[in-house]
Amino acid sequence: MRNRLLSLPIQLAPCGGEPYKQQIARAIEELIVTGRLRADDQLPSINELVAMLKVSKNTVLGAYQLLQDAGLIRSALRRGFFVEAVGDCALKPAELASRPAQPPPIYASTVRPVHAPGVHTPPPPVPVRFDFKVGRPSPHAFPWRRWAALSNQLLRHAGRAIGEYSPAEGLWGLRMQLADYLASAKMLSVEPEQIIIVAGTQEALSLIVANCLDDGAEVVMEAPGYTGFSHLLAQHRARSVQVPVDAEGLRTALLPERALPLAYVTPSHQYPLGHTLSLARRRQLLEWAARNGTLIIEDDYDGDFRYASAPLPPLVAMDPTRVVYLGTFSKVLGPGLRLGYLVCPPALVDSITRRKALLNNGCPWLEQAVMARYLESGEYSRHVHSLRQRYRKQRDSLLDGLQRVWGHAGEVSGEHGGMHVAFRLPDGSASATEVARMALARGVRLLRCRRPPAAAGAMSVSCCSATPRSTSAPSRRR
Amino acid sequence: MRNRLLSLPIQLAPCGGEPYKQQIARAIEELIVTGRLRADDQLPSINELVAMLKVSKNTVLGAYQLLQDAGLIRSALRRGFFVEAVGDCALKPAELASRPAQPPPIYASTVRPVHAPGVHTPPPPVPVRFDFKVGRPSPHAFPWRRWAALSNQLLRHAGRAIGEYSPAEGLWGLRMQLADYLASAKMLSVEPEQIIIVAGTQEALSLIVANCLDDGAEVVMEAPGYTGFSHLLAQHRARSVQVPVDAEGLRTALLPERALPLAYVTPSHQYPLGHTLSLARRRQLLEWAARNGTLIIEDDYDGDFRYASAPLPPLVAMDPTRVVYLGTFSKVLGPGLRLGYLVCPPALVDSITRRKALLNNGCPWLEQAVMARYLESGEYSRHVHSLRQRYRKQRDSLLDGLQRVWGHAGEVSGEHGGMHVAFRLPDGSASATEVARMALARGVRLLRCRRPPAAAGAMSVSCCSATPRSTSAPSRRR
Repeated sequence: MRNRLLSLPIQLAPCGGEPYKQQIARAIEELIVTGRLRADDQLPSINELVAMLKVSKNTVLGAYQLLQDAGLIRSALRRGFFVEAVGDCALKPAELASRPAQPPPIYASTVRPVHAPGVHTPPPPVPVRFDFKVGRPSPHAFPWRRWAALSNQLLRHAGRAIGEYSPAEGLWGLRMQLADYLASAKMLSVEPEQIIIVAGTQEALSLIVANCLDDGAEVVMEAPGYTGFSHLLAQHRARSVQVPVDAEGLRTALLPERALPLAYVTPSHQYPLGHTLSLARRRQLLEWAARNGTLIIEDDYDGDFRYASAPLPPLVAMDPTRVVYLGTFSKVLGPGLRLGYLVCPPALVDSITRRKALLNNGCPWLEQAVMARYLESGEYSRHVHSLRQRYRKQRDSLLDGLQRVWGHAGEVSGEHGGMHVAFRLPDGSASATEVARMALARGVRLLRCRRPPAAAGAMSVSCCSATPRSTSAPSRRR
Repeated sequence: MRNRLLSLPIQLAPCGGEPYKQQIARAIEELIVTGRLRADDQLPSINELVAMLKVSKNTVLGAYQLLQDAGLIRSALRRGFFVEAVGDCALKPAELASRPAQPPPIYASTVRPVHAPGVHTPPPPVPVRFDFKVGRPSPHAFPWRRWAALSNQLLRHAGRAIGEYSPAEGLWGLRMQLADYLASAKMLSVEPEQIIIVAGTQEALSLIVANCLDDGAEVVMEAPGYTGFSHLLAQHRARSVQVPVDAEGLRTALLPERALPLAYVTPSHQYPLGHTLSLARRRQLLEWAARNGTLIIEDDYDGDFRYASAPLPPLVAMDPTRVVYLGTFSKVLGPGLRLGYLVCPPALVDSITRRKALLNNGCPWLEQAVMARYLESGEYSRHVHSLRQRYRKQRDSLLDGLQRVWGHAGEVSGEHGGMHVAFRLPDGSASATEVARMALARGVRLLRCRRPPAAAGAMSVSCCSATPRSTSAPSRRR
């Protein structure tokens, strides 16, 4: 449990015109949205607040009720009131919303850190007002009404479905819809039988690593690259062979010529620098893999977003026997769904399915069933399309802003697709670490890229999750 | 994909009074619910059925529409119509329900086998009319209305919650509610911080095995025991040391006296024979573990159901530093939720959390959030209570039936708790294999226990998932 608070910094304006209960609720809301109250903090008891503010018990009860209705706090029987971890401050009942016009509150991150460095970052020392955290979709874009309607429809059948184990490899309907989607959206021709539904890209990587690696094995990955993968390798006692990237993506000329079981790449939008692997390099990579007996993991984590030229064909389209393709719904709908998929070479389907069964017997039924319907109806495609428009605009604002501040100094990469761009600071400026620190002290979170040399002085900046918090206040409920 | 059917065995009664479209829909429903049509079978096209039945196109379209509305089939654009994998045949629109009274349809299993023997069994050769499959809750008991209402409420906040990674160890609210529940329902005093939310018991086992075992390690398990665990051990190149069980549970006197990292037991209702580990044996087991430095996995897979005496204290209550306690919602609500938890000794919390983060970054947000509310409101406790009444009655019917057929011959075990009983055939009768085969040929599925000597001639029979299918027709929509 977090803090147990005995008092709160609340000043009531007796002649303010606004009823006390709304003043109290608003003051507490401010404390929550500015991050001074954190998820799971315990609020003062009713009596404590009564004593402190010299108001009636009903007033305090009314204020807490308003906050509960707004999803900002919860009550736990005989324990008291707690700040809600999942409350979306954007949704308030009419009463709370009736306060005088003022700048919209900016949300502090209430996500608790996990113990896997590189997968998530620890919480910042000050409230984050503009969070340019990488890889999160705009929180206002989630189609919750539609999701609720589909869930509702499907839950009528839930007894039979939830009362059983679904297939470990995923619901057939979802795999079939995904095959259709990949055919139309990415020109990928895959059989539904090749698709295995997993709890996000991280689980896909876990399954492949557990399936394909022995202790001490060496695995090629990009430098800089996704640290969630290098931590996974370390856990499996495998070693990473770091191959640098440049503006054409992985520098294939530097690939070691020896038998290596796995190579992990992000061809469509290199993580974190955002480069696209060129066609020539794609060919070289596949030829290298064929020579050395390597299985390639193609992580297309945000491949749905492409703003300029037509995308290059995925690696898996060029050599379906040697590439495992990873897709995810985390970037389009949200990582809280824990839903992704891998497209396996036929030879791997059985062993990965068996692993998934012994790991956790498959993914939850409801998310899969809803997603299948959402794909089937064409809504998913339309949603991706509208996100693409939205994210393109947000990217444009971000590039404008960078230009205004830095002029032609510095260097942007990754702006042609995906959900973030990288920005390399000009020579002679403060270090990326220093800039990120200064920004954070002002409530702006950036992600500093860590690995030299390609990433020296570079920072990744989301053009998706952050900007809506500062610019889209009027359209928040979309 | 399964079969592509070009025709169906449908006879229309021209003077039957019932419109053709309903006759057709009903006939196809019968084929589905009796298992002659299987999940993902492709139905004849509209034109094929028109040609076969000599009816109008609109009639066939109408019939397919009725079946779609009932969730029994689905249409896939440009591919045709398919039997639905998740359809609950019990829920039909008014039109379909208006047919003449007749015995309720019995459901065939539409679950597809996975490739993990012991986790699931392959589909039977004939339609299963009475499925005494072990470990599935009654499909009619799932509180879908309430689940839909809670999902609906929570999805309003989904953008912010699904748009983020939740904590890998699970939502704080759920862990807090679980700590409360364990305190009141099992007199277990645990801190929320010790609870880690996982995708079911199988994932809990995967995490522990990956965390605690090296190649070639030896692990104690019960004989007969849960084969899903022995397969997991094999995958991790660990070996099982099989210790027999008797009427008091694990025969602790036979435990090997050497340093062993792990022991896996099911004390409250031994799987599959159903014995309860006696208090004396519990003490011996814990003393043995302390002597040999062993961590005990206590799998309380259906410990919510106890029909006679008060339950013994869980092992974890007797030695919280040496026992990992596994709980699951699979048996109360359904395995399709993929939601369970482990209560870790404090020393293990960090490493298991880190493993969960690197494995798949946590469980989906919605199931966790709904479950937290369902626990908080007290509805979960009430649901368990009403299930206990229901399952006790069903167990009584089952015991009556066994008595009627076998008299005092044979031997029942595990009838005082849990969701299934085991029945040992009397000496001189056909073998368990033979009895199970004969039963299956008549559409009755039993689970034969496999490992001698304790299990020779024994069969496990669910008293939960099967009986409702034959007896609870009038209350199906509960």
